[in-house]
Amino acid sequence: MEPTPDDKFSFGLWTVGWPARDPFGDATRPPLDPVETVHRLAALGAYGVTFHDDDLVPFGSDDDARTKVVARFREALDATGLVVPMATTNLFTHPVFKDGAFTSNDRDVRRYALRKVMRNLDLAAELGARTYVFWGGREGAESPAGKDVRAALDRYREAIDTLAAYVVDRGYGIRFALEPKPNEPRGDILLPTIGHALAFVASLEHRDRVGLNPEVGHEQMTGLNFVHGIAQVLWHGKLFHIDLNGQRGVRFDQDLVFGHGDLLDAFALVDLLEHGGPGGGPAYDGPRHFDYKPRRTEDLAGVWESAAANMRTYLLLRERARAFRADPEVQEALAACRTAELATPTLADGETVDDLLADRSALEDFDVDAAGERGYGYSRLDQLMVEHALGAR
Amino acid sequence: MEPTPDDKFSFGLWTVGWPARDPFGDATRPPLDPVETVHRLAALGAYGVTFHDDDLVPFGSDDDARTKVVARFREALDATGLVVPMATTNLFTHPVFKDGAFTSNDRDVRRYALRKVMRNLDLAAELGARTYVFWGGREGAESPAGKDVRAALDRYREAIDTLAAYVVDRGYGIRFALEPKPNEPRGDILLPTIGHALAFVASLEHRDRVGLNPEVGHEQMTGLNFVHGIAQVLWHGKLFHIDLNGQRGVRFDQDLVFGHGDLLDAFALVDLLEHGGPGGGPAYDGPRHFDYKPRRTEDLAGVWESAAANMRTYLLLRERARAFRADPEVQEALAACRTAELATPTLADGETVDDLLADRSALEDFDVDAAGERGYGYSRLDQLMVEHALGAR
Amino acid sequence: MEPTPDDKFSFGLWTVGWPARDPFGDATRPPLDPVETVHRLAALGAYGVTFHDDDLVPFGSDDDARTKVVARFREALDATGLVVPMATTNLFTHPVFKDGAFTSNDRDVRRYALRKVMRNLDLAAELGARTYVFWGGREGAESPAGKDVRAALDRYREAIDTLAAYVVDRGYGIRFALEPKPNEPRGDILLPTIGHALAFVASLEHRDRVGLNPEVGHEQMTGLNFVHGIAQVLWHGKLFHIDLNGQRGVRFDQDLVFGHGDLLDAFALVDLLEHGGPGGGPAYDGPRHFDYKPRRTEDLAGVWESAAANMRTYLLLRERARAFRADPEVQEALAACRTAELATPTLADGETVDDLLADRSALEDFDVDAAGERGYGYSRLDQLMVEHALGAR
Amino acid sequence: MEPTPDDKFSFGLWTVGWPARDPFGDATRPPLDPVETVHRLAALGAYGVTFHDDDLVPFGSDDDARTKVVARFREALDATGLVVPMATTNLFTHPVFKDGAFTSNDRDVRRYALRKVMRNLDLAAELGARTYVFWGGREGAESPAGKDVRAALDRYREAIDTLAAYVVDRGYGIRFALEPKPNEPRGDILLPTIGHALAFVASLEHRDRVGLNPEVGHEQMTGLNFVHGIAQVLWHGKLFHIDLNGQRGVRFDQDLVFGHGDLLDAFALVDLLEHGGPGGGPAYDGPRHFDYKPRRTEDLAGVWESAAANMRTYLLLRERARAFRADPEVQEALAACRTAELATPTLADGETVDDLLADRSALEDFDVDAAGERGYGYSRLDQLMVEHALGAR
Repeated sequence: MEPTPDDKFSFGLWTVGWPARDPFGDATRPPLDPVETVHRLAALGAYGVTFHDDDLVPFGSDDDARTKVVARFREALDATGLVVPMATTNLFTHPVFKDGAFTSNDRDVRRYALRKVMRNLDLAAELGARTYVFWGGREGAESPAGKDVRAALDRYREAIDTLAAYVVDRGYGIRFALEPKPNEPRGDILLPTIGHALAFVASLEHRDRVGLNPEVGHEQMTGLNFVHGIAQVLWHGKLFHIDLNGQRGVRFDQDLVFGHGDLLDAFALVDLLEHGGPGGGPAYDGPRHFDYKPRRTEDLAGVWESAAANMRTYLLLRERARAFRADPEVQEALAACRTAELATPTLADGETVDDLLADRSALEDFDVDAAGERGYGYSRLDQLMVEHALGAR
Repeated sequence: MEPTPDDKFSFGLWTVGWPARDPFGDATRPPLDPVETVHRLAALGAYGVTFHDDDLVPFGSDDDARTKVVARFREALDATGLVVPMATTNLFTHPVFKDGAFTSNDRDVRRYALRKVMRNLDLAAELGARTYVFWGGREGAESPAGKDVRAALDRYREAIDTLAAYVVDRGYGIRFALEPKPNEPRGDILLPTIGHALAFVASLEHRDRVGLNPEVGHEQMTGLNFVHGIAQVLWHGKLFHIDLNGQRGVRFDQDLVFGHGDLLDAFALVDLLEHGGPGGGPAYDGPRHFDYKPRRTEDLAGVWESAAANMRTYLLLRERARAFRADPEVQEALAACRTAELATPTLADGETVDDLLADRSALEDFDVDAAGERGYGYSRLDQLMVEHALGAR
Repeated sequence: MEPTPDDKFSFGLWTVGWPARDPFGDATRPPLDPVETVHRLAALGAYGVTFHDDDLVPFGSDDDARTKVVARFREALDATGLVVPMATTNLFTHPVFKDGAFTSNDRDVRRYALRKVMRNLDLAAELGARTYVFWGGREGAESPAGKDVRAALDRYREAIDTLAAYVVDRGYGIRFALEPKPNEPRGDILLPTIGHALAFVASLEHRDRVGLNPEVGHEQMTGLNFVHGIAQVLWHGKLFHIDLNGQRGVRFDQDLVFGHGDLLDAFALVDLLEHGGPGGGPAYDGPRHFDYKPRRTEDLAGVWESAAANMRTYLLLRERARAFRADPEVQEALAACRTAELATPTLADGETVDDLLADRSALEDFDVDAAGERGYGYSRLDQLMVEHALGAR
Repeated sequence: MEPTPDDKFSFGLWTVGWPARDPFGDATRPPLDPVETVHRLAALGAYGVTFHDDDLVPFGSDDDARTKVVARFREALDATGLVVPMATTNLFTHPVFKDGAFTSNDRDVRRYALRKVMRNLDLAAELGARTYVFWGGREGAESPAGKDVRAALDRYREAIDTLAAYVVDRGYGIRFALEPKPNEPRGDILLPTIGHALAFVASLEHRDRVGLNPEVGHEQMTGLNFVHGIAQVLWHGKLFHIDLNGQRGVRFDQDLVFGHGDLLDAFALVDLLEHGGPGGGPAYDGPRHFDYKPRRTEDLAGVWESAAANMRTYLLLRERARAFRADPEVQEALAACRTAELATPTLADGETVDDLLADRSALEDFDVDAAGERGYGYSRLDQLMVEHALGAR
């Protein structure tokens, strides 16, 4: 249960580095030096580190300061072997973004936001990132009339397509991943769920280069089933990255350790990621990225305990999911549920609508009451999953 | 404030006709004769009536019974002038659908479901319906492993594309509208929000013929902003139909009278539908369809009171929205919010990415702190909206 | 992991006997004969069976029919050794209760409700029940002005005190347990949470005879922490009975199998019930009562599978909780959290307010910044709990 | 619609003075001088101003600084006529309180918290406050095993009783008001709802001196009906103070302007406060205290706009509620709902349980089906309320 880089675990600088300032309280921890973070994460068995521009290069740094910071960071990466699989932009902390970045009512703010992203795309490419995440935390509104949502979606599309064109033009091997969230800090955020973001992506000129970075807690904040959501993202071929953490249902954004929220959902998620692919193999081979916050009650020892806890819980769930899939009783229970039958098309190969209409067994001679009496056997299968989660089989 | 058919108000037979059986209680009202419903709705000023197949023709009726029922119904339509703008299928009441209709694990159930829809499509076309709604209330799961969500989405797509092909083949002038819902009666329902359904539609072969039928309460059950949702549906060109009702937040599906849930959201919704189009005209010209349930405490007098209440509240909100848009102080407040500036593209006409990079005013010379100090003036605008909602201006 | 009567597991007749009618669908299972249920539950290892009056004696039965039904039921109890630890009244199914029972606006309905309860209290006493539950599912409102909430609370108090007086007068050894729920079937239900019910009980004349019957899912429907709630009930000495089941957060009432909702909360709950008492022993010694519904997709085989699953999951969690409490690393982690220090009064024995004011170490000389730097070590403890839940230690 | 001090509107220094730092963003507004705030609020027509100790006297100030600050503040009060009806303690911003104040696992933190409160109680008394509020935002937990909830409630009770004894001893004319909140900033907060706090108060030694300060948004964060909650608080005689604001359902704490969340609930609340007392008069005569936050998008002009908006919306709703109560159609609709009948005891004056048992009309001869057919007429009443809310009658 010791993580290794092969497990592809990654962490944002802003996660372990969160100083624990919250809406009602001051920071309880000192800032972390990114270089120390890289060494600590490497020692814990992580594979990658990710960052917002301002996590690494403090906002307002001049070019000299910037160069030095980046050089020190690269050195730490080289020394530890940690990679930078993903980067992103801070478009939410500074007051200038209070009404949005790509969708601020103010055009000069929108232009500034594009430039801020471009500058960090250069750095991301330089550091070898393959994914660039867009979390539009300020792209939203509280005012029903003050924000024209359709105009905002036009500007959002303009921004993503412009930035995708930039990446293509520069020859960067970078794909974009949008991260939905329903609310907080804005009253309502645009592209609030996986679904809204998928629909938006389908409308882009550069739709092939743009996918999603779904986060466990962001979907659970609406009560939606995260595993169903990820299954739909996979179905659309758009799982470009994933943010793992924990959340205790519909409330403020908690960013708990992975598994410390809904444990059964975490089990089902790991089962999907690891066994949802062809032949029962992985459905996703990218980084397992933890976007969590060590609690405000913890000191630095607690920070590193909690970082390790994310990885350990994932590995335990992976082991449980393997045993679940390998259990002959589970196979038997799945057969009783006719789960595999859903993969068979409803129409036979070559069957036309008129053939279906001519098939009396489908309607006229179908014994609907008898069919309604069949049990689906889900109770047994679900209990088997709970018992595997509890390590009891 | 008296509704007329020009207002395009429509009601489902199952709304006023709900016998008020709930999960903990028996029916408190007798069934309504659809013919009586047609006459009552017409007398109240409605424009249309809609139905599930089984609302009109009782489940299991033979062809003779069916013909008689339909003939009586047509007569009532002809006598009153009421139209049938929309129809839909009951794929949820009978036990045969307990694991889904298009996505049941049982293939014969899926075939039966397709045939049940086809049969009612013929009737819908015969009665002149232009929209056919699909609410997949049983297309979902409680069991994490028992339902293969990606296979289910394959079958869902197969079903919708097959049925669309049928409509095309028969030359019916019918478009499809999917109605999302997050949960209830299933633990989790597929295509749980407007967003998920829009993304699904974009993946269909017959995507041009398929849009959405969003329902106020279904989105509010997840805490999502319904008005934002409708704006995104409009942005995608997919608002084919709409279900108006009321809901008091994240909880069970309440189907209250329109406006009896979140009144400010109802105001903003009517404002969007009536004034969100080009030049401030309507953004939507289809039926204003009420999908509500008269409360279980009400007798038949209360049923017709509540039906009238839906229309009256809509008309009052329409009047309030007109006054809001016409108020010079509102215009001034909108200008202060720079709301219209969001319609201006972020890049100038013909501006390239390299032009943007060369524009020092966008980054290097941008006074980010000064820009961060600007107020957006939303408080004033929102208070003006509240005061218009209260009829106080 | 085989349950025995010593484990004190009990089930309502209405749980396994639920015919699976839901707001959108007809029954999928036939009614169960209560006598068969008694035999089945006994065979599964249960200890008790509970009922609403109408579960056992069909609504409207005459005295003869009633006598026969009760005699057959007693025979089954005697044959199996199953006990009836609790009974309750159906004050929600019949239309007469549509506006409430004890708090209906109609006085004759309120009087009828009292009599219906009294009749069943006689039977409950005859069958040896020690607890009588009141779930006021219809005591609520949707109409803000139509229901006078304070008058309703007066009538609620009158009803409970009147019925308690009846029990005292008849010499029945029965205590009352109120079961809170926030909404569904009413828009809002009176006494919506554990807290509201506790406050109400404190206002009763017969407050000593009245406690609570909290249900997992009913509190989780509001997003409240069920384990915190039970701890407060225990603190007030009012945990008279408990309803165990599962719920997936803020949504409709799901009544899942215990543990099939929030598994970590279920772990913490079992830990509290089994180890929250003096010396680490049980904090509650009454029935572990499952108030769940076998899913609508299941046939009768699934019904009995799911009944067994409730008990098996409880036993597994009990085993996990024992191991958690016995683990020396857990003890060490608890010490690091200073959890036990909270049991020490804040004022020293005999310390007065003036003594505290004179203690400069409490304020003037208190190094507030140093104290703010201490970590509480919860991350490590919580991960130990997750790993025990996963059976990984 | 111009507020005057007779309307008893009050504001916290921390409301208009919020610098708009949120969990994802830096402050967007400069700090406000409390003296300026007093003058501004007075100019807007407010009656009172309230404060946390640290709002007025910066944390860590020495005695000299403290004296000067207080003197300037008093001067402003004297100059404007504004009163200080309530004060409270900041027990949440400094890291020392990260695990709680009265219920921190660390005893020295608990002692410090008591002293911090005592110091400010002296100032509150000096400034004439009659109510002292306790919002225990940090009294909670995320860790299931790390916090002993029953020990925490013991300490909470010890703290409140100790402080009440202090107030009694000093002869201060101050009552305490507890303010519940379910979560945020802690994962779960103790005394999470109105109900839990009422039950806790009933367990105190000084229960007569302690009541509640319920906040609109805090209850709406759990989906509970705020108006029902306030009705129960009034029923227990415990509405000592009230916090008015707006919230859009189950999500993070929004602190919107009063009425800018659930407008119908705001209407019903004002109706209850103003017309819920004997003879239709006020049920509450204390301050109408706004605990809201001007949005982060607003500059100082927006701050004062939003402050005025709270008062204006209250006054408009008060006017609407007056018209509602005075409308003869409303009176008629209420009569049809039999709302007043609920005030009649269920048992007749002097009727015993045996009398009730002997009354055959209550059970044996009660026509339960006929009674079940009666309609309650709520639909008409509710529509009248909606139309009054819309200013349409």
